[in-house]
Amino acid sequence: MSLIVTGSIGIDSVETPTRTAEQVLGGSAIYFAAGASFFTPVRLVAAVGDDFPESFLNTIKHFSVDLAGLEHRPGSKTFRWRGRYHENMNRRDTIEVELNVLGEAQPPVPSAYRDSKFVFLANTHPAAQLELLDQFPDRELAVADTMDLWIETERDALTTLLAQIDGLVLNNDEAEQLAGDANLIRAAETIASMGPKFVVVKKGEHGAFIVYQGEKAVLPAYPAREVVDPTGAGDAFAGGMMGQLATSPKLSLDRLRWAMAYGTIVASFNIESFSLDRMLQITRTDINRRFEAFRSMLQIAD
Amino acid sequence: MSLIVTGSIGIDSVETPTRTAEQVLGGSAIYFAAGASFFTPVRLVAAVGDDFPESFLNTIKHFSVDLAGLEHRPGSKTFRWRGRYHENMNRRDTIEVELNVLGEAQPPVPSAYRDSKFVFLANTHPAAQLELLDQFPDRELAVADTMDLWIETERDALTTLLAQIDGLVLNNDEAEQLAGDANLIRAAETIASMGPKFVVVKKGEHGAFIVYQGEKAVLPAYPAREVVDPTGAGDAFAGGMMGQLATSPKLSLDRLRWAMAYGTIVASFNIESFSLDRMLQITRTDINRRFEAFRSMLQIAD
Repeated sequence: MSLIVTGSIGIDSVETPTRTAEQVLGGSAIYFAAGASFFTPVRLVAAVGDDFPESFLNTIKHFSVDLAGLEHRPGSKTFRWRGRYHENMNRRDTIEVELNVLGEAQPPVPSAYRDSKFVFLANTHPAAQLELLDQFPDRELAVADTMDLWIETERDALTTLLAQIDGLVLNNDEAEQLAGDANLIRAAETIASMGPKFVVVKKGEHGAFIVYQGEKAVLPAYPAREVVDPTGAGDAFAGGMMGQLATSPKLSLDRLRWAMAYGTIVASFNIESFSLDRMLQITRTDINRRFEAFRSMLQIAD
Repeated sequence: MSLIVTGSIGIDSVETPTRTAEQVLGGSAIYFAAGASFFTPVRLVAAVGDDFPESFLNTIKHFSVDLAGLEHRPGSKTFRWRGRYHENMNRRDTIEVELNVLGEAQPPVPSAYRDSKFVFLANTHPAAQLELLDQFPDRELAVADTMDLWIETERDALTTLLAQIDGLVLNNDEAEQLAGDANLIRAAETIASMGPKFVVVKKGEHGAFIVYQGEKAVLPAYPAREVVDPTGAGDAFAGGMMGQLATSPKLSLDRLRWAMAYGTIVASFNIESFSLDRMLQITRTDINRRFEAFRSMLQIAD
């Protein structure tokens, strides 16, 4: 089934306590698309400038991603971001950001993409997310991500968006901020009452949980001995989850948890390297193997 | 099978963002004993002063706890602690502490307790934990807790202790500090290499994980809509876990995870009130019901 993602492509520089990666491929839509592509073909709507390296394009082509919606905008520059992680890798600071093409007009959605059934609106201005949403009249499942900036400055547009989407994926700080409640379970329930059928709260190394029609499910992260770079883990998680949901769209708590578990596994690979380096090495077989290990790790039997 | 706990009994005052409890029953041994008593009778070795209220004694008697090892020390005062939780309840500050009887000699272990098979050494000076350990020559499983203070100031005694116990239970900050490693999985593996067969890392609202003979298991916390008071949750968790292990002592990763899941459920009840108030209301049936909900919450099936 057709899955589409709209979001950012970036040229990232990432500093961790032990290593640094300069000018590597990144961006929410890229991590999402790569993660989802293990499950289903992905359509990508995003824009880059004429500084976007040919080699990055080849990297994207490794994955099952349709690039008809990738706009090369002449005279513009690609979004750039530099981040620095703290010692324990749970926190990071943005050191530099150049919006570039992200500060300009949205890239057009190819008309061939209008029939997309599964829509993921990666983080951007909620008004832009709403505009994008309108271009997929046949959608069966629309899920969005957001960030602290929009919660603070664009609450009205975000509230309008929440009433029109099926699911919201956000991190724990954002959930707390959006609901004004330090209890994450109650916060997620409050957000669900604003419209979406389900709310997934991502907690990084502590896993994720979901509220769906008054029910809850919770998953730990896959235990990782080595975290090289957490950048994009949340997007890769959402990609794995949506990719799996797109193969079998009927919503239920079981189905959503099952999809979240695949998202968890995709994210666990993604953090093992900078950029998409680890995702480039693995296949669906690797994902399935770790998925089964994770599943049995959670089986409580005496 | 005979389970014994040695540790503190306190008169606690607890301030949370919304409510305060003045001078209520607390202490690591009390939370542990109450939690474990749902699974097996518990022997308690601890000391209180002559300020210890009769009503607190009656509260303890509600649970299946043998009080032959509870010393009333004339002329001494009971350990007192006042803590204040931050807005999100994950962090707290100690506002006042009076060691009182905890700063004096250890309470004697009744000779009838020498045959104890399951030993839990709640947090105290590691040299005192070692002394206590020697008094249980027939022990089959000895597990200890510790804290940041001893990791910093008594590393030698703690290292000696680690070589003599079967399991260590500690929280994430302590694991990071003890191993000198911000990656919790690696930290737990490092600690396991110092002696204990298993290391359980408690992460509060984010659950717990275990390393045992090179294998790992991870559990989220039971999702809680309302946290009244997190005090004692880690001890109640350890109590539920050890109580369940004592009913069926052969160690395996499955068995340990199963016991940890019971500990998770006991802790989830404990945080629903101050002191032991919620534990006083529930029965093993309530624990089993929530345990089954938790178990199915973690079952990944499509």
